[in-house]
Amino acid sequence: VSGRNFASDNWAPVHPRVMEALERANVSDAHAYGYDPYTERLRERVQDLFGGAAEPFPVFNGTGANVLCLDVLTRPYDGVICTDVAHIAVDECGAPEKIAGCKLFTIPNEEGKLRAARVRSEPRLLENVGNEHRAQPTVLSLTQATELGTVYTEQELAELRSLALEHGLAVHVDGARFANALAAHGMSPAASVEAAGARALSFGGTKNGLMFGELAIFFDEEGAARARYLRKQNLQLASKMRYISAQFLAVFEDDLWLEMAKHANDMAALLAARLSDQEPIYIPYPVETNAVFATMPHDVIADLRASWDFYVWDQASGTVRLMTSFATMPAQIDAFARDVARRVRQRRIT
Amino acid sequence: VSGRNFASDNWAPVHPRVMEALERANVSDAHAYGYDPYTERLRERVQDLFGGAAEPFPVFNGTGANVLCLDVLTRPYDGVICTDVAHIAVDECGAPEKIAGCKLFTIPNEEGKLRAARVRSEPRLLENVGNEHRAQPTVLSLTQATELGTVYTEQELAELRSLALEHGLAVHVDGARFANALAAHGMSPAASVEAAGARALSFGGTKNGLMFGELAIFFDEEGAARARYLRKQNLQLASKMRYISAQFLAVFEDDLWLEMAKHANDMAALLAARLSDQEPIYIPYPVETNAVFATMPHDVIADLRASWDFYVWDQASGTVRLMTSFATMPAQIDAFARDVARRVRQRRIT
Amino acid sequence: VSGRNFASDNWAPVHPRVMEALERANVSDAHAYGYDPYTERLRERVQDLFGGAAEPFPVFNGTGANVLCLDVLTRPYDGVICTDVAHIAVDECGAPEKIAGCKLFTIPNEEGKLRAARVRSEPRLLENVGNEHRAQPTVLSLTQATELGTVYTEQELAELRSLALEHGLAVHVDGARFANALAAHGMSPAASVEAAGARALSFGGTKNGLMFGELAIFFDEEGAARARYLRKQNLQLASKMRYISAQFLAVFEDDLWLEMAKHANDMAALLAARLSDQEPIYIPYPVETNAVFATMPHDVIADLRASWDFYVWDQASGTVRLMTSFATMPAQIDAFARDVARRVRQRRIT
Amino acid sequence: VSGRNFASDNWAPVHPRVMEALERANVSDAHAYGYDPYTERLRERVQDLFGGAAEPFPVFNGTGANVLCLDVLTRPYDGVICTDVAHIAVDECGAPEKIAGCKLFTIPNEEGKLRAARVRSEPRLLENVGNEHRAQPTVLSLTQATELGTVYTEQELAELRSLALEHGLAVHVDGARFANALAAHGMSPAASVEAAGARALSFGGTKNGLMFGELAIFFDEEGAARARYLRKQNLQLASKMRYISAQFLAVFEDDLWLEMAKHANDMAALLAARLSDQEPIYIPYPVETNAVFATMPHDVIADLRASWDFYVWDQASGTVRLMTSFATMPAQIDAFARDVARRVRQRRIT
Repeated sequence: VSGRNFASDNWAPVHPRVMEALERANVSDAHAYGYDPYTERLRERVQDLFGGAAEPFPVFNGTGANVLCLDVLTRPYDGVICTDVAHIAVDECGAPEKIAGCKLFTIPNEEGKLRAARVRSEPRLLENVGNEHRAQPTVLSLTQATELGTVYTEQELAELRSLALEHGLAVHVDGARFANALAAHGMSPAASVEAAGARALSFGGTKNGLMFGELAIFFDEEGAARARYLRKQNLQLASKMRYISAQFLAVFEDDLWLEMAKHANDMAALLAARLSDQEPIYIPYPVETNAVFATMPHDVIADLRASWDFYVWDQASGTVRLMTSFATMPAQIDAFARDVARRVRQRRIT
Repeated sequence: VSGRNFASDNWAPVHPRVMEALERANVSDAHAYGYDPYTERLRERVQDLFGGAAEPFPVFNGTGANVLCLDVLTRPYDGVICTDVAHIAVDECGAPEKIAGCKLFTIPNEEGKLRAARVRSEPRLLENVGNEHRAQPTVLSLTQATELGTVYTEQELAELRSLALEHGLAVHVDGARFANALAAHGMSPAASVEAAGARALSFGGTKNGLMFGELAIFFDEEGAARARYLRKQNLQLASKMRYISAQFLAVFEDDLWLEMAKHANDMAALLAARLSDQEPIYIPYPVETNAVFATMPHDVIADLRASWDFYVWDQASGTVRLMTSFATMPAQIDAFARDVARRVRQRRIT
Repeated sequence: VSGRNFASDNWAPVHPRVMEALERANVSDAHAYGYDPYTERLRERVQDLFGGAAEPFPVFNGTGANVLCLDVLTRPYDGVICTDVAHIAVDECGAPEKIAGCKLFTIPNEEGKLRAARVRSEPRLLENVGNEHRAQPTVLSLTQATELGTVYTEQELAELRSLALEHGLAVHVDGARFANALAAHGMSPAASVEAAGARALSFGGTKNGLMFGELAIFFDEEGAARARYLRKQNLQLASKMRYISAQFLAVFEDDLWLEMAKHANDMAALLAARLSDQEPIYIPYPVETNAVFATMPHDVIADLRASWDFYVWDQASGTVRLMTSFATMPAQIDAFARDVARRVRQRRIT
Repeated sequence: VSGRNFASDNWAPVHPRVMEALERANVSDAHAYGYDPYTERLRERVQDLFGGAAEPFPVFNGTGANVLCLDVLTRPYDGVICTDVAHIAVDECGAPEKIAGCKLFTIPNEEGKLRAARVRSEPRLLENVGNEHRAQPTVLSLTQATELGTVYTEQELAELRSLALEHGLAVHVDGARFANALAAHGMSPAASVEAAGARALSFGGTKNGLMFGELAIFFDEEGAARARYLRKQNLQLASKMRYISAQFLAVFEDDLWLEMAKHANDMAALLAARLSDQEPIYIPYPVETNAVFATMPHDVIADLRASWDFYVWDQASGTVRLMTSFATMPAQIDAFARDVARRVRQRRIT
């Protein structure tokens, strides 16, 4: 696998400074379940980054963070508006429906994004409000960066925020790759959350250099009060929580988290640049973070998969997804681009 | 906290050999979601220990393992028979009911144990079978070692196994401290599971030297087939799973897991010995693993809590729980016993 | 069956005045889902009986009413305190856990009742408040009249109300046989609800002369607002609702509902009187409503069951439950008492 | 309302012969919960109509029948494929997700129908099989007659049946208006179920002349075995079940159910005929059962709603839904058509 992975940023190892932090945290007994000094410091650090109202709840994984956020924000008859490619809709095996107990209203994405205008024009959706026969639209869940690697602009977030205010929707941000989005558009964490008017954020760690651990962050007291119980009930309360908190503290030090994300983004940009002039390969979406989608002939895909790891996103069109991470090296990009070039060349000949 | 913790074995740090294994596993990219060589080796190792039918599913925590096991074994109208002190009944914030979707039938424990005769004589329980107005008793869940630190004997397990066979119940073993039980009674892992006729085992790691990670082990194909999906849906599928698997491989090496458990058990035995002759302190349950329960005057408890960490198990009777771990040192036992002795002495004088 | 039924008051037919009301309601089209004039009148009538804050939601059956009430009052991590013989705990196939998503804390009953002192002294219950590892006690559910046919006194209700206030518990009354309780102790509906401080009441109809239909009544706006959606989601929204509402209007006319309940209670009193002097038959609980429990020799039970329908409540002690209804005739009591007397006599001889 | 209702067939009253049957059933006590002679006869009658494997479970309403069917057919990680206008997806307030615990995969409808080719070409659907990150497509749910009043042809059912067989999907038929479909295409009940390869059928009663009551019918023993418990747990077990069964027996007598459905269909055909030549009114879907959809200018809709009851199906296009029932009289069609004609005429003038 090593040096051949464009499959996912969660195939990457743990950043050395995170490993060091884990060792440093491993000196003696500590209170379990988050009543330890690491978790206390993490809370302060998150409030530095996101504002004093932010209450972080360390959890185990991204699905855990998403489901906790949605569970806090919904009652059983509530529904969550998201795109048709949202992780919560597609890749979580029905966990939001089962555990948060909410219905998902999926809207066709535009370059991975939920757009306010599409939500407004969706039949049988906002008109459901007050109709007891229908699940009540209550939450807007957007993914920043999106599943397609794009990043919502401040303007797009403002439009969604307005929509949410107008219809009494709570905003959830699935930020499994929030760091990559910040590294891309340069907003501060607090400003980014504010722009979306988010009440809850799934803040990713595992895909950005951690061994395990994400944060569900709530921006009001009511949410945080519910989250205490729901985190436990949803199987996300780590007993030795210091080992999650210490990892986040390590990446928050000297902005390592943003540096790692920027590196991953840069590698994706490099990869896109190296593929963009290789006809007939086509890059269907803007490359803004650490994902490059590329549409290729099926035989080229088949050839490449013999020696490289990546996902075929859409079999019909021949679109593959190539992810980079903090650990991706330029040499790997080079090798891959050369492989692609050779195959494209061979194709022209035959 | 350090050197003053009898609160729980999950306050302990990570065993150094586990930390080393995590570092060794941190060399390069690896397939996510368990398709890595560590997890493959772990599967082989578990089959060595538990027999070839055993299918281990690494998960994040003990509640996750328990709920996954119960979810696999039940349909919505099924009920789980367990004691009134079972972790699933008392300490999981209703997660089994919410996520596995099963009803719990709690039976008064006998020294922490579920006894077959009590189950048989419980009104409105086994007679429920076939009565559509009542949840159907389908699973027997026993905890080995128990919440009170006791260990089921082979005979007691055989009685429960017979009961289960007779009434078509599947047996689940909550083995958050399975290692401590094995270290206590000397049975092999496979023999212990066989004695109970278990179809699913929650096999603990975090309380025995790991940073995080437990195994839900299934002993038939049908269970394993369902567990694949339910693990993901129940928020327990680690993306960087190698870091769970590598920890288990480390503790299975040279029987470190049993050695750690034996040490914890020995420390509890030492503690019990040091307390047992200190009138009016009373040890209400047999000390068989790494928990010592001690009934003390309320003022002694209050005094001790000023400088030691432990849980008051039962306020009314003045019973406290003192847990030891792989990291508990004899000097800590000494210091505690001396503190207790001083207080008991002072009490006699005043 | 006819004339031989002491099995249940839900074996009875529909009261003739209810049938007439159904026919009268069957004249033309009417708005569905409760937007019909019958349901509007029912709302007014319920507010006459229970006070202006009462909002009735017609539902299909008793389990539906109970689960709706609990669903409205709880979040997923909340628990409901009730007795070990409560219908919600024993006879609803786990529906409260599955659908309302709450944990049940069962307390040993005293003559069918939940007693405040028992709740206070229950280990691991009220102390759970604020402990994220444990489901949070949030609702007190009492059954009036109880499953054993007894009726809470005003004093007992006041004690439970105080307990609830003190610990922030919402009170739910399962009133499947609320009419029988009122007929027994003479309190008004409003006074009875007030005495318990109830926020939600399951008000029975089917067991008191209706064909089908119960009311879930909420006494605050917040509860009613949630109930609108949860009734639909919980499969309890009748499209042709007028046919439930018309039945309730019929029985509220001239206090027919109380008259029917009083008749059933009187029949039970008569039955108890006829059995009470037949040694060795023993009446273990006070006969206050329409249930008579009687402890009998097993051979007498077996003989009687050949020609009479009733439930064996407790096989071990030989206790049977004999229910009367609005339709039970004194002649049936006579016949049964004579049968019992003959068997008891034969027994003495042999 | 009377004589002005095109809102729904569930605004209609109860057919007189059903009322008579209810009265006849109201003679004496009867076993509760379906152990009565009416329910026994109903079972035989259903087996006459649907074949000997058919096991009917009387339930209260259509959502109850649908959710019971889906609950029987699914595990928590299973998903149900249906159209984007399916009642289970749109009009049941999230009940299938909450109570059956399944995810819904909605597919764009073609004239109300789920078409096999669309299912096959849907991205991220059938390819999900075996992918633990995704809910598993397990059930095909089709509505016969559809929400748009159309009827699947034998050929269309055969295509869906093939698709289901190929991918191991169980077929569920939502037959809230099954009678209308049969009356339209003339197939026998058994043949219609066979054509679709259905394992479960929600068989409607309330919309076709009953007061309340539907049947969930299962066509294999495994389904029926689970349904016993799930019906109770899902709040659908009527205690006085004879009053549901007696209604179905009444409509099965002399094919009254098909006669009523045919009448409703005929009235819809008449209505469509009367509207079809009134420019610019447009009938967008084939009128095959008892629903007429009509696209009209918004001002005409507004005018008509002042004196007629009907639903606006799609505000944007100005499409209204006009339902007929067994009780709709030709005079009502005439009056409505005249009203429409007058408004259309006025419009041309102004």
